[in-house]
Amino acid sequence: MQETKLVEDNSLIHIYTGTGKGKTTAALGICLRAAGWGFETAFIQFMKGRDSGELLAAKKLINTMLFEQYGSEKFINKKNLSDISEHKIFADRGIVRAKELLLSSRYKVIVLDEILNLLEFELITEDGILELIDMNGKSELILTGRGATDQLIKRADLVTEMKEIKHYYTKGIIARKGIEY
Amino acid sequence: MQETKLVEDNSLIHIYTGTGKGKTTAALGICLRAAGWGFETAFIQFMKGRDSGELLAAKKLINTMLFEQYGSEKFINKKNLSDISEHKIFADRGIVRAKELLLSSRYKVIVLDEILNLLEFELITEDGILELIDMNGKSELILTGRGATDQLIKRADLVTEMKEIKHYYTKGIIARKGIEY
Repeated sequence: MQETKLVEDNSLIHIYTGTGKGKTTAALGICLRAAGWGFETAFIQFMKGRDSGELLAAKKLINTMLFEQYGSEKFINKKNLSDISEHKIFADRGIVRAKELLLSSRYKVIVLDEILNLLEFELITEDGILELIDMNGKSELILTGRGATDQLIKRADLVTEMKEIKHYYTKGIIARKGIEY
Repeated sequence: MQETKLVEDNSLIHIYTGTGKGKTTAALGICLRAAGWGFETAFIQFMKGRDSGELLAAKKLINTMLFEQYGSEKFINKKNLSDISEHKIFADRGIVRAKELLLSSRYKVIVLDEILNLLEFELITEDGILELIDMNGKSELILTGRGATDQLIKRADLVTEMKEIKHYYTKGIIARKGIEY
């Protein structure tokens, strides 16, 4: 009988994907948990560029949590990608910054929030994300966003699909301060 | 054509269920987000009774977050439920406390963490959970745990199933400080 191997590995790869609510919040929750024990965490947020509760919490409440946004305030117009260049500049900056943090091994947890959404707009390639994963030193690395590819799922140690069973946006509920942002 | 109704409702019911990682952390993430804006939140944790990063974070970092545990340090032995009485006492206390908080309308967010797991051990009934939902005043109410029933899903405004695609516990990774607790 094979002995169970109990390891205390500190550099596992998580993917939170799917269309349901709970991907970014799950990543935030792990940062909160780590912060409770005094660990340093880094939260790199792609695609978004406006004030949010998580940004304010990191700035005001949790001084061991680095929080940086690499997204435009403007939404990407899926039907007209001619103005994608501004978004590309933000994404590229975020990717460079992520590499720096991954190589540092300073952080218990590094979140690349919504990075998987960049794939749809060709703001990063699958190989680009695999390169980031390979660069990770000793951080728990968390990737979120819709559209995880088979290769990324294969490479990750943990994958949860946040499956939307029902959502109140279908009732016309707007994004609310403190709940959605 | 029916006009879209955009409401700013503040007492919606969320359920995070399924076997994948991300249920408790998603609930924690919403509390972090709310805390960033200065809102008060309450996190009632069932089934667990030991130190965790979230408990420490609420005590030390986020003074607007009430965090209380209503679980034993001992795990429930699924094969021998004769010693369930201690767990029943904890659960009952937590349920009474939850009612008090729900009726107060003081909190932006109230989380009843792992409450759905109580169903399996008959520490609460489906009607008992529906009663809690009906008592909610003006808080966003978040229920987590495995085994959401059809009636509870019907009653909720938002349901996400955290579906386990892969998990590192199958590799023998033990629960780690700052990641799992």
